[in-house]
Order: sequence, then C-alpha cells, then structure tokens
Amino acid sequence: MTKARSNLQIDSARLWGDIHETAKFGATPKGGVKRLTLGPEDKQVRDWFRTACEAAGCEVSVDALGTMFAIRPGRDMSKPPIGIGSHLDTQPTGGKYDGILGTLAALEVVRAINDAGIETEYPVCVCNWTNEEGSRYAPAMMASAAYAGDYTTDDILGRKDADGITVAEALDTIGYRGADAVGKQKFSAFVELHIEQGPLLEAENKTIGVVDRGQGIMWYNGSIAGFASHAGTTPMPLRKDALAAFSEVVLAVERIARDLGPNAVGTIGEIRIDNPSRNVIPGDLTFTVDIRSSESATLDQLHDALQRAVAEIIARRNVKITVEQIWRKEPTVFDTKLVDAVETATKEMGYSHRRITSGAGHDACNLAAVVPAAMIFVPCKDGVSHNELEDATQADCTAGANVLLHTVLLLAGVATESRADS
Amino acid sequence: MTKARSNLQIDSARLWGDIHETAKFGATPKGGVKRLTLGPEDKQVRDWFRTACEAAGCEVSVDALGTMFAIRPGRDMSKPPIGIGSHLDTQPTGGKYDGILGTLAALEVVRAINDAGIETEYPVCVCNWTNEEGSRYAPAMMASAAYAGDYTTDDILGRKDADGITVAEALDTIGYRGADAVGKQKFSAFVELHIEQGPLLEAENKTIGVVDRGQGIMWYNGSIAGFASHAGTTPMPLRKDALAAFSEVVLAVERIARDLGPNAVGTIGEIRIDNPSRNVIPGDLTFTVDIRSSESATLDQLHDALQRAVAEIIARRNVKITVEQIWRKEPTVFDTKLVDAVETATKEMGYSHRRITSGAGHDACNLAAVVPAAMIFVPCKDGVSHNELEDATQADCTAGANVLLHTVLLLAGVATESRADS
Repeated sequence: MTKARSNLQIDSARLWGDIHETAKFGATPKGGVKRLTLGPEDKQVRDWFRTACEAAGCEVSVDALGTMFAIRPGRDMSKPPIGIGSHLDTQPTGGKYDGILGTLAALEVVRAINDAGIETEYPVCVCNWTNEEGSRYAPAMMASAAYAGDYTTDDILGRKDADGITVAEALDTIGYRGADAVGKQKFSAFVELHIEQGPLLEAENKTIGVVDRGQGIMWYNGSIAGFASHAGTTPMPLRKDALAAFSEVVLAVERIARDLGPNAVGTIGEIRIDNPSRNVIPGDLTFTVDIRSSESATLDQLHDALQRAVAEIIARRNVKITVEQIWRKEPTVFDTKLVDAVETATKEMGYSHRRITSGAGHDACNLAAVVPAAMIFVPCKDGVSHNELEDATQADCTAGANVLLHTVLLLAGVATESRADS
Repeated sequence: MTKARSNLQIDSARLWGDIHETAKFGATPKGGVKRLTLGPEDKQVRDWFRTACEAAGCEVSVDALGTMFAIRPGRDMSKPPIGIGSHLDTQPTGGKYDGILGTLAALEVVRAINDAGIETEYPVCVCNWTNEEGSRYAPAMMASAAYAGDYTTDDILGRKDADGITVAEALDTIGYRGADAVGKQKFSAFVELHIEQGPLLEAENKTIGVVDRGQGIMWYNGSIAGFASHAGTTPMPLRKDALAAFSEVVLAVERIARDLGPNAVGTIGEIRIDNPSRNVIPGDLTFTVDIRSSESATLDQLHDALQRAVAEIIARRNVKITVEQIWRKEPTVFDTKLVDAVETATKEMGYSHRRITSGAGHDACNLAAVVPAAMIFVPCKDGVSHNELEDATQADCTAGANVLLHTVLLLAGVATESRADS
C-alpha cells in the first residue's frame, strides 16, 4: 500500500452537498424526502445522477428494470467490476439518507479515485437499484431480487401500483426502461454503504458497523375468531374475547423473541378488529407477525415456539387462532473476504467499529446470493429511519464513504497512480 | 283478583304478526332491520304505530323530541298513567326484537285489555321513545335522558348526524316534532319489556328475567405512547412497544373484572395503532375501556384497580399510558314495589324466572331517575343483539308480553270488567 492510498479521503463537503442537493427532488415540508420509485421526482434524481456519473467519467447503462450502472473503467476491462451503491427511491415520508447515502457515497468514491489519479485494476460500477423501498410496488428490493433470480423480469414488469400503473408503464413514462437484460451486468463483488436504521452503533458510540450477516425473516398473517357480544350483558366467564386472546399472542411473541435473543426479534405491527365498537366484545380480528434472526436454526426455534404458544392459547381460551407463514427468507451470510476487507479498511482509517447484523433487508442481501457481497453501516440518530426525522452526521457519513473508498481500493486494486501524495 | 284476570293472556299470533309486519320497514337482506332514528323507515313505522294505537282506542300525542305517547283512558284520569313501551328505532344492522318487542307488546297489552272489556283505574300509556340506539345521533337513549333532565331539549334538538342534519331538522322532515314539552307527560310508573341481549336466561333455561338493577357504566379513552421503530433493527431490550404495553392493559382489565366478579365486566372494544405497518414496532395507539357493575362500590374498586395496573405497566415498560374516564353512570336501582309486581305477575303466569341485572342501558334506566320503573327480560338466542341474527322465540315473546299485561293490571288496577271469563 502506498502512502497516497492510506491518506486518501473522499471530499466530505462535496458528498454532503450532493446529499442536500438531491434532497430537493421530493423534499417534504418536515425536512424529509418523498421520492417514490419511478415517479417524477425519481426521474429528476436519476437524471441528476446520470449527469454526475458521466461528469465523473463513467459510462451509464440502464437495465430492463431501470437499475442504473455507471462504470468507471479499470485497467483490466475483462474483469467484472467492483459494484458499489444502493438506491435513490424513498418511503412516502422518508429521510435524506436511507439508500441515498450509499448511492451518492459510491459516486463520491469514484470522484475521489479520479482526483487521486488512480487507475484501478478492476473497473468500478456505481449502482442505483430500482424500487428498494417497496412503497409503490411490491416486493421491496425489487430489482436486486430480480437480479438474484427470485423473480422474472416479466413478472416484475407487470406489477401494478395502487393506481393500476405497471412497472413497465412507469419505466416508459420516465424513460428509464433500459435495453440491457437484468443480470447482464456482472460484478466481481458488491459493497453497499447504508445507515444502520437501528440504535446499536449510536448506543455503543461506534462509527462503523462491519456488517457480516443479514437477518432471516419470517412473516405471518394471523386471525382470531372469538365471539362478538355485548360488553354489558356478557359475563366474563362466558366470553370468547378475540382481543384478550390476541393480547396473549402479542406477549408470547415478545417473550419468545426475548428468550431466544439476543439474535432474535419478534414484532406484531398490525391488528384490525372487524366492526370495532366501544361496547362490543371483539369477535373477529386479523394481525401480522414479523420474526427475524441471523441464525436459520433460531428461526426454526422461533417458529416452533410461536406455534406451541398459539396452540396453548387456543386450548385455554376456546377461540380459533390461525397463524400462517406467508414468507420465509433465510439469513444472509456476507462474503468473509469482503467483510474482512471492510474491517481492514475501517482499521486503516482508525474508526471505532463493531461487527453487526443487518436487521433490515437491503439490496446487498439479495445480491449476496449470486455475488460476493458486504455492507458498511454508519449510525443514524436514535436509530430512526423510514421517517422524515431520519438524521445522520456529516462526520459519520464521511467516515462511511471513506471506508467504502478504501474497501474499493483493496478490492479493485491500484494499477497506477499519477498523482503523488501530499 | 277475579278469575278473568288470572286467565287473561295477550293474543300471541297478533303480537307475532305485528313484529313481522313492522319488520318490513327497513328490512335487510339478512333478515334484520335497519331503521335509523328519524329516517324514512322510522317515519313508516311511526305512522303504522300511530294508526294501530288509535285503532286500539288510544289518543296519541308527540313531544318536542318526537317521543310518542298513546294513552288508553283509565277510570281516574287525574292519575298519571302507567307507562309501558320501549323504542322502534334500530341499529344499522339491527334485529327484529331490540326495542320493538317492548313497544309492540305494550300495544298488544292495551288490545288485550280492550278485548277483555276491562276498565283500569289508572290510564295506560304506550310509549315509543326517540333514538334509543344512538346510531344516528349521540347520545343513545336520547329522549329518555332528556325526559330525565340529563340534557335540555334545545341541546338535543341541535345535535347533528354524520351528514350535519340536526335532530330538529330530522323531526321536521318526517313530521314528528310534537308540540308538547319534553317531560310534560307524567307517569305513575314505567315498565319496559325487552330481550335480555345477554346469555344468562338462555343458559339457565329461564323464561322471564325480573330486572331489579341496571349496571353502572364507566367509559374511558386510553392512549399509549411508546416509540415506533424498525421491527428488524431494534433489539428487544431497547423497544418501547406500545402494542405490548396495550396487551398488558387488555389482560389487566380482564383480570380485574374477573377478580371483582360476578357483578363486574370489563371490555376493550377498540384499538387503533397510528400508521400501522407489518415491519414497524407500534409507537402510538389509542383504545377504549368499558367497565360495568351493578354496585357503585364495585365501580370504585374497578376504577382504582385499573389505575394501579396501568401505573405498574407504565413503570415497568417505560411508556406513557393515559386512561381518562369520559363517562360514569351510577347503577340503576329499579323500584322495589314495581319489581315485586313484575315478579308477582310472573309467578301468577307460572313462568320460570330469575332476578337479573340489566347489562345494557335502556330507556327505563334513564326514567328510573324520575319515575318508579322496572323491566322485564325474555331470552334471546345465544344472547346476540345489535345484529341481524338477533332472534327470540314466539313463546318467550308471548310470555314477556303476558307478564307485562299482568304487571299493568296490578299497577293500573281493574275498575270494571264488562266481559265474563270463559
């Protein structure tokens, strides 16, 4: 390693300026961003991104699902590039950092390498993956899932938003339905920088999360059938109160996740009583369950414990409860060599750090199935994300981009340097 | 008592015919009735009721809130009448018996007395109270509450439905805004026949409930403020899960009511999570609490126990919980002499019976504050009410009407009989 490389940093002010410049595309009154995938604001930021990438010497291509690939050439163009980036779409009341930091930091990494006059051995490819958020079109992480072969391109192109507009129509409307087949753009490796969207780094005062795993997820749809009756006239012993049974399910999910923790979380996020009324005992209701762990065996244990708990509640309360698993995604294990490279780059820069599991899903989690992949996390304020209050410091964003820069240099290799170190 | 009186029965087929005849006004496809107060179907049934009462020799007057009073003269017209009746309005998906049985049975009682050629000492007044259900206009039991002085007539006349139509406008539209001041029509006593709307009589295979009390009611509005965060990234120990805290409140209400039972019930009927999402830990939610007992002291105990339970949950879970009492109605104690008269009439007819507390609110509960009052219950299938499936047998409805008949004869007194017993 030359001195130039170990001293090299991204331009913090330029990155920060880009984050706030692009935040104007879909800016909300409360300081957040509403930039639904493939909408007019998404077109604005895509156009900005394409122009900026080209200005940085990249050649930009677009695939059939609108994912943008901006390639900075390497010495050996026969090698697939080192992919870096994330997504530029947001939640309906999203923040300025989720996805955006990772995409703009990737662009900034290319600029920093340019400024240093470095030629890398491998090409570098800055990516903007279509529809990570899943707010307008299901599923979330749509384009990376299709890239990994979870869905066909035609399936995804036919998906409709709430207004009945297909992905194909939306892509055509904004002019981002590219000619390249999904999956045509190969990678030697993929590294994604992202805000943590959780509280651990902040709580432990760490700057960098070296992400070695992504949690597996199980989703369930639940229903309870008790018997709706009059709140005043039905004695307690004769009730079949669906809400009381539900409350025991909620506490069981919490207890099970705690018991099998720390690598386990369980959440009930939605409950809907049929025809609710202040003076009617809830008869029928539906709910959701979200259970996650970084260990596949723990997912199995959580699943079994949930079924046992529900069976016990059914027997004791004489109500019907169904808890149907509608999705199971196995945990992601990121590539050991890439994770080590991220950790090495972090140590070179002297940032405090810890290994961390990604609690949320990310494009890198999908890509890990077909490409060696890794992620870098930086703290976000109070762990808040998917919220206009989402916040991160310039120092932390800069640190994350620097780790991404040095990870890229480790992975892409330095062929030649035209500029001496200062 | 003459033999004629002890043998006297209402005409079961005529009562049953009236119930099914009037059920056409607002009939629903599922066999129920939708007859919102002061709407066009309510006008239809009111017109039918007026005509039928007049045909039975009654003089019908209407007060300023549309309550209908049909008076069958007694020997001593200086005495206020014995009031009987209930209401003809229904829930949006109501049944054929709630309120209707009590009103049409009162009419049938007058006809039976007519047919027997009996002159009573007191006049008898068949009543149809406006807006018992409270579905279109709040509060429920509106006209009887105003009669009892809980609200002024002007206050009630200004109440608006969901479309902004005032009670005054609705009364004018159907031509039932009467000239008489609310409260002008006095009563010597008031007796209301009603379906139980609960499961006790059916469970114990009893025909008649001799209602001696009405439960007191306390209503609360509750809210919980936890912290909404990502279901995947927030470790269990760092969560402030409003739904988990709520679940403990639900189970506390259930436990408290059971512990202080059998004369106590507690129900949470509504829960609304702000911006619910499958993968977001619930941050803020609101809920209702309905607590009832026939004993005022038990209401106090229930209230205190709820506050203690909530305080304990707040302390342990570090969330904010507010549980604000928005209404407290003291238990109704029905008039001892009237309750005894109902029981005597029941025994005369040889019906199985039990003393019972009304779990629901009724016009008679309001009137009890200003008039000696009592109620008669008959079973309804599975205790179901406020539902198109509401059902009751012809035999039970007939029995209830017979008890009402003989209670009226006991209270109004037989002055002369023109027809010999058969």
